[in-house]
Amino acid sequence: MSLGELFDEPADTRQELMGATYRALCEHGYAELTIQRISDQFPKSKSLLYHHYDSKDELLIDFLSFVLDHLESTTPQGDDDPLEALQRLLEYLLPTEPSTEQQQFRRAIIELRAQAASNPEYQAQFTRSTNYFENRFASIIEHGSQEGVFRPVDAERLATLIVATVDGAMLREATTDPDHVQPAMSRLRAELTDYVERRLVDAEREGTE
Amino acid sequence: MSLGELFDEPADTRQELMGATYRALCEHGYAELTIQRISDQFPKSKSLLYHHYDSKDELLIDFLSFVLDHLESTTPQGDDDPLEALQRLLEYLLPTEPSTEQQQFRRAIIELRAQAASNPEYQAQFTRSTNYFENRFASIIEHGSQEGVFRPVDAERLATLIVATVDGAMLREATTDPDHVQPAMSRLRAELTDYVERRLVDAEREGTE
Repeated sequence: MSLGELFDEPADTRQELMGATYRALCEHGYAELTIQRISDQFPKSKSLLYHHYDSKDELLIDFLSFVLDHLESTTPQGDDDPLEALQRLLEYLLPTEPSTEQQQFRRAIIELRAQAASNPEYQAQFTRSTNYFENRFASIIEHGSQEGVFRPVDAERLATLIVATVDGAMLREATTDPDHVQPAMSRLRAELTDYVERRLVDAEREGTE
Repeated sequence: MSLGELFDEPADTRQELMGATYRALCEHGYAELTIQRISDQFPKSKSLLYHHYDSKDELLIDFLSFVLDHLESTTPQGDDDPLEALQRLLEYLLPTEPSTEQQQFRRAIIELRAQAASNPEYQAQFTRSTNYFENRFASIIEHGSQEGVFRPVDAERLATLIVATVDGAMLREATTDPDHVQPAMSRLRAELTDYVERRLVDAEREGTE
């Protein structure tokens, strides 16, 4: 279930509040976000919101933690074919055809991530997500190597490169001329997929174009 | 010449002003930056500064354009050995041992880059830098292929991946737990260098670890 779908049918007040934050972020981005704008998206008593959070940043850090829990619980897991598992995880993080809402949200996430340059609480959230996805990639790669499907490689090293490339792709998507983003994403996805396959399974293709 | 060195001996008032912006950014980051703090770093008449710029963002966009001019004019060029040229460009963008000042400045650049998610003038600057470095990498790769030193590859595709990986590395450096950044950067640099070499020159190493 995507975040947008989750927030369409919130199960409790916390999910309603997180949904209001999500919609306000998609609509206004971080720079223009205010507690008032979040509360405008919140169907219940505004005092509830002001009661729980002293500041926009306090609410957003709680929101990030909620989003990461959701991302972790919906990350594609346990596939018998390690190569398919890798491809599925890449598609999860860098969707081929993101919806407008996903693009808006990814832009807001980049703005939130930049807060981590000066705010340790934001930094803790993004350290957690970086480690989580790096470990996911590394464990799929290690599993494939143990099964003899993948070549033995330094799984942690390769996982670090994949996560940095995905992060760089998101940064480019959110901060450069939108008219040229999609061709760049296609090149990047093709090269990254090709790289991972060459590195892990497909020695014969080396040297051929 | 590094930016820090350039600003130590400014050649004119504009460079003095850009130096003041640089020092204020390194010290306070984007979030805490004010025109007043920039003017505190500026040795000449404050009215000059207020006269030329209406807002912090107007000054910062001019600053970004100045920094990009400088980066472009100091980017390592024209090496006879394409592989060395690639490695030198990577080291230029992802220095193995960045100084504290460089790290502070790179953090501020990430904060400025996030402004591009909502501000088209910031976006234009980062589009320009992304295109510039992608073209640099692609032209070195193409040159190497023409000389028969590199395998024929899709140079633009590989260049897009390299630039995204470098951007993702800077993002990680600036926004995750500093205690674990250096090991991650080492892994990333090793994997990226290895990848570029395997992809372009070193078929024999495939399949061996």
